[in-house]
Amino acid sequence: MSHLPEALRIETRAVLKRAREASWTLAQASGALKNRWLVRLAETLQTGQDTILAANQIDLKNAVDAGRSGAMVDRLRLDDRGIQNLVTALHEIAAMPDPVGRVTSGEVRPQGFEVRKQRVPLGVIGMVYESRPNVTIDAAALCLKAGNAVVLRGGSEALHSNSALIEMLRSSLHAVGLPMDAVQQPATAERQAIEALVSERDGLDLCIPRGGTQLIDFIMQVARVPVIQHYQGVCHLYVHSAADLAQATRVVVNAKAQRPGVCNALEAVLVDAAIADEAVPMLVRALTAANVQVRACKRTIAHAGGCAVAAQPDDYGQEFLDLICLMHVVDDLDDALAHIRQFGSRHTEGILTRDIAAAHRFTQGVDASCVVVNASTRLNDGSCLGLGAEIGISTTKLHAYGPMGLDSLTTERWLVVGDGHVRQ
Amino acid sequence: MSHLPEALRIETRAVLKRAREASWTLAQASGALKNRWLVRLAETLQTGQDTILAANQIDLKNAVDAGRSGAMVDRLRLDDRGIQNLVTALHEIAAMPDPVGRVTSGEVRPQGFEVRKQRVPLGVIGMVYESRPNVTIDAAALCLKAGNAVVLRGGSEALHSNSALIEMLRSSLHAVGLPMDAVQQPATAERQAIEALVSERDGLDLCIPRGGTQLIDFIMQVARVPVIQHYQGVCHLYVHSAADLAQATRVVVNAKAQRPGVCNALEAVLVDAAIADEAVPMLVRALTAANVQVRACKRTIAHAGGCAVAAQPDDYGQEFLDLICLMHVVDDLDDALAHIRQFGSRHTEGILTRDIAAAHRFTQGVDASCVVVNASTRLNDGSCLGLGAEIGISTTKLHAYGPMGLDSLTTERWLVVGDGHVRQ
Repeated sequence: MSHLPEALRIETRAVLKRAREASWTLAQASGALKNRWLVRLAETLQTGQDTILAANQIDLKNAVDAGRSGAMVDRLRLDDRGIQNLVTALHEIAAMPDPVGRVTSGEVRPQGFEVRKQRVPLGVIGMVYESRPNVTIDAAALCLKAGNAVVLRGGSEALHSNSALIEMLRSSLHAVGLPMDAVQQPATAERQAIEALVSERDGLDLCIPRGGTQLIDFIMQVARVPVIQHYQGVCHLYVHSAADLAQATRVVVNAKAQRPGVCNALEAVLVDAAIADEAVPMLVRALTAANVQVRACKRTIAHAGGCAVAAQPDDYGQEFLDLICLMHVVDDLDDALAHIRQFGSRHTEGILTRDIAAAHRFTQGVDASCVVVNASTRLNDGSCLGLGAEIGISTTKLHAYGPMGLDSLTTERWLVVGDGHVRQ
Repeated sequence: MSHLPEALRIETRAVLKRAREASWTLAQASGALKNRWLVRLAETLQTGQDTILAANQIDLKNAVDAGRSGAMVDRLRLDDRGIQNLVTALHEIAAMPDPVGRVTSGEVRPQGFEVRKQRVPLGVIGMVYESRPNVTIDAAALCLKAGNAVVLRGGSEALHSNSALIEMLRSSLHAVGLPMDAVQQPATAERQAIEALVSERDGLDLCIPRGGTQLIDFIMQVARVPVIQHYQGVCHLYVHSAADLAQATRVVVNAKAQRPGVCNALEAVLVDAAIADEAVPMLVRALTAANVQVRACKRTIAHAGGCAVAAQPDDYGQEFLDLICLMHVVDDLDDALAHIRQFGSRHTEGILTRDIAAAHRFTQGVDASCVVVNASTRLNDGSCLGLGAEIGISTTKLHAYGPMGLDSLTTERWLVVGDGHVRQ
């Protein structure tokens, strides 16, 4: 890693050292004080709304001038309603129970000493993300509520918006008597700063990348700290031979079309060969009516009545994030499981069936952060599952698999209280 | 990573592919079947004892011929009693509850669908370790009981012993109808094989290195998969001004001398300045009587009555793993916390005091996988804490912080069971 400028390394270490010191204060801050900060931050965003919108305008203009896509400009945009949503989210996070200090188990051991497991903050978290400036507020609020310091590295396209928001994060920390350095940006805005940040061994306790696969691939290549990937969701629903077809059709359409651009949206429908003659036309008709393009295997095409296009090899395992859906006929449940093992991304996988034995075999045999039975893949979401606000959906198995809420931003330590107890 | 021979990469991918396929079978294997394997393995070790001891003799002879230290030769040695201990451990692991499938929480969401969190295996685990051949059996037993496949890479010094043991692991799997490839060795015995194994992104779900700091540093440098470090234990006990000195002395001597060569052994005693004149002579006398060399700061020396040597700068933060102990006088509790932040390794840290407020402040302010109050650091151990057999003691905060038992070799996934539920 000698290719990184030494000055950048030194500045990065200084950022991380300040973050570490701030993390000690945050780790001991009371829940009441952290909540006071969240409410103060909400007020600051409201009173500073014009400043935020003005900064956002610069980013928007730069994006348009640079010829960015309409979808990307949309993701960049902050408006009155967007800021109000942030304010609401901050009040919701303030209302959530504080995870720090929670005793998750405990007992008196036979020798007579007490043992407890207790949630403590992770320490210093690095959040590397793209586009949406609202992540700046959401991520900082969740990390700090869980007692951590955070280094935030948003995309260069949102530089002005993020800087304005980070200024408000820091000033509101100062206002309630918490260390401003609990929220920082990397030393510089260059891409090299990401590498410097994540390659400093023991600098971050956790790096969470959220963004396109290119960003995540880059971080996986250079990171020397633990990374929880929020990688792609290539989500499947398997319409089993004993499915309630009317219900299955409603679920498939919801999973694909309710919000196609997100990671828990459906990307591929697997249809059991035993019911393909009836199921394929129903599914294709309903998806087409919802403006979804169906890309179909040969066996699907035979039943699709001309409403589907032939799937190409690279449509398999593809995260379309769009109104496009692969449809593929499988021989049976085992074939469905084999297909998902080959093309799935361990995000969300589901079966639609009235047969309880088939549901059992499917859930036992599939590996994904969330397995759904007779329900939409879109339910794999922190708010739907009862976690409250989430910082993302992990496709890494370690530590957190699936939606990551406040608890996932802490770890559990051991506490032993004795009265002179020793090891025999 | 182009410096690795392409043939090694290809062979490593083949090992990992076979391990992945075996992991699917293991993930669905019943607890009864996995326990049958453990018992069969215990029998195989007993009937094959002569084969194991003969292989071990070759490793021992090679080690002696190579001029290895007596301590290292000792760690390599397997004898009748060592094999009997392995047999006992296997029966204990068979008797432990199966973590796979355990539902850890669940509820019916307001919309009416059911949500459960459930333990599932991690998948494929890579275990890289040194010296002790018994780790081969312990690690494989724990990984497979938790439903995982494992790739085992022991030290080259134990090559013959480990190969004999791995042969027995595989033959006993075959005997009960489980896939032999759930236990494998890397493609070659060369050190490059470690790099090939851990740098294959998404190849392993987890790498657990156990060994010296050099081995772990190397893996942290080359790994592209999640690593849980079992790094060094620079453990401190702080003798507070309100300590019961007789009790504190017994605890300090136990923590240092009961088994000095392990990671949860004490390395440094911090003595509160307020009681140094009384505490230092007591502690130094007791440690010296237990054959411990005390390396002391200037203020300690002043009270040590000539029984301590002057500490050098690099004695601070040192993991002696020997009958050597640093002793350092601190101004007060805050100074003790600052000292531990600077020199500790987040393994095991403790306070000895009768003052409940001091204990509270210390436990709140210190960051370690295990914090002890009025007890020996040696209690930070899977069996003492009630976990049963452990695969190591993690100093990584993510996923498992402290002793790692069976549960730490699984993750939790989400299961959603609906009746046509969709996202609104």
